[in-house]
Amino acid sequence: MTIKIYGSFRSPFSMAVALAVYEKDQEFDLLMMDVKSPEYLNNFNPFGKIPSYQDDDITLFESKAIMRYVATKFADQGTPLLGSTIVEQALCNQWLEVHSHSFIPPMVETGLAIIRNPQQPDNSVLKPALEKLSNVLDIYEARLSASKYLAGDSYTLADVTHTAFFYIFNAITDDEMKKTITSRPHLHAWIQDIISRPAWKKLAERPENTRYKH
Amino acid sequence: MTIKIYGSFRSPFSMAVALAVYEKDQEFDLLMMDVKSPEYLNNFNPFGKIPSYQDDDITLFESKAIMRYVATKFADQGTPLLGSTIVEQALCNQWLEVHSHSFIPPMVETGLAIIRNPQQPDNSVLKPALEKLSNVLDIYEARLSASKYLAGDSYTLADVTHTAFFYIFNAITDDEMKKTITSRPHLHAWIQDIISRPAWKKLAERPENTRYKH
Ligand SMILES: N[C@@H](CCC(=O)N[C@@H](CS)C(=O)NCC(=O)O)C(=O)O
Ligand SMILES: N[C@@H](CCC(=O)N[C@@H](CS)C(=O)NCC(=O)O)C(=O)O
Repeated sequence: MTIKIYGSFRSPFSMAVALAVYEKDQEFDLLMMDVKSPEYLNNFNPFGKIPSYQDDDITLFESKAIMRYVATKFADQGTPLLGSTIVEQALCNQWLEVHSHSFIPPMVETGLAIIRNPQQPDNSVLKPALEKLSNVLDIYEARLSASKYLAGDSYTLADVTHTAFFYIFNAITDDEMKKTITSRPHLHAWIQDIISRPAWKKLAERPENTRYKH
Repeated sequence: MTIKIYGSFRSPFSMAVALAVYEKDQEFDLLMMDVKSPEYLNNFNPFGKIPSYQDDDITLFESKAIMRYVATKFADQGTPLLGSTIVEQALCNQWLEVHSHSFIPPMVETGLAIIRNPQQPDNSVLKPALEKLSNVLDIYEARLSASKYLAGDSYTLADVTHTAFFYIFNAITDDEMKKTITSRPHLHAWIQDIISRPAWKKLAERPENTRYKH
């Protein structure tokens, strides 16, 4: 069975799973189901979220669990994604958790403020969200000035999980917003690095993909 | 160096790390620092949260990353905690994510409603929180009627991470609240199982520990 990803290219969590699959030199079909349908809830994810994943051996949900499974199952193919030492592996896991608990909340808050009114975002919402995000990005800047990738010298799932979010953020043209990234040189260089990888480019060029097309 | 856990027995995330260490037959010192002090922010966790962890090889934060590190480093000692097959490992990871994203939010909401006014909780807050939590626990009940533990036949980190939360919940004496657990027989049996483990009991009996003492 070809790998099946139930999800959408509009969902950065789905993109993270798809990117991990491509980094492992595997192919996948992207499928969309009604996440509130009994079929989806009973067979794929009782919590009614995307992405979920299926291959001959497993049906699985939660993007970070899926990525770890893919990285383990195809350990010998494509890019190693779990860290090459026990310490790098631990730091990979640490930054995957940072993504969930510290990065996502202010990133989503900032994103929603912009999406709700792209031309003239409500500054009473956007400003505090952006300030929280900036404080978090200062910690990323410090980390990325000490190591090339989040977990250390090698690219890992910790980088994979951030890619779609920063790709979207990086494409914003507003000058003030751009500074959120460009004023942090190590963060900026890291983003350019991770969005230039062949696996990400291949994903961005997929025909079903409208959001990330150049 | 003895393992050092910076945290508190009042924090269920710290307890999860401590429990993983005990399940691996290791010892630890429990230390508390001011999490907003420059010393803590610079050396332990720039996000200013507990727990963090230190041994001769690493300083690490985020409870689930620490637990995975401990389970990997002491793979051959104590209880295996990562799942015994690639599928069990994936399901362990899936339920660790479920804990973060689906269980914690309504559990914290419910807990806060009770803590704010233990004698007479505000029902306009408690009721909807408890309803959300109940929906999530229905999914746990379904899972635990199909397998003994969350990841399958063996006890894993997915169970470890829930133990302190359910121990506290299980100790509530209010009849209505008790039904949240007792009306779900597989959930109920699983909770009794995981809070009866020697490693958990040893933790509950530690002298520094006031909250979990019998
Ligand atoms: N923790 C989940 C988050 C998944 C998530 O929030 N997915 C969103 C889309 S990005 C979702 O499915 N929302 C409900 C919907 O689309 O109907 C993961 O990492 O997989
Ligand atoms: N995702 C974190 C959550 C840690 C967390 O929320 N810790 C709380 C205590 S339970 C905390 O440190 N709050 C700030 C404080 O205690 O000052 C983990 O799993 O380690």
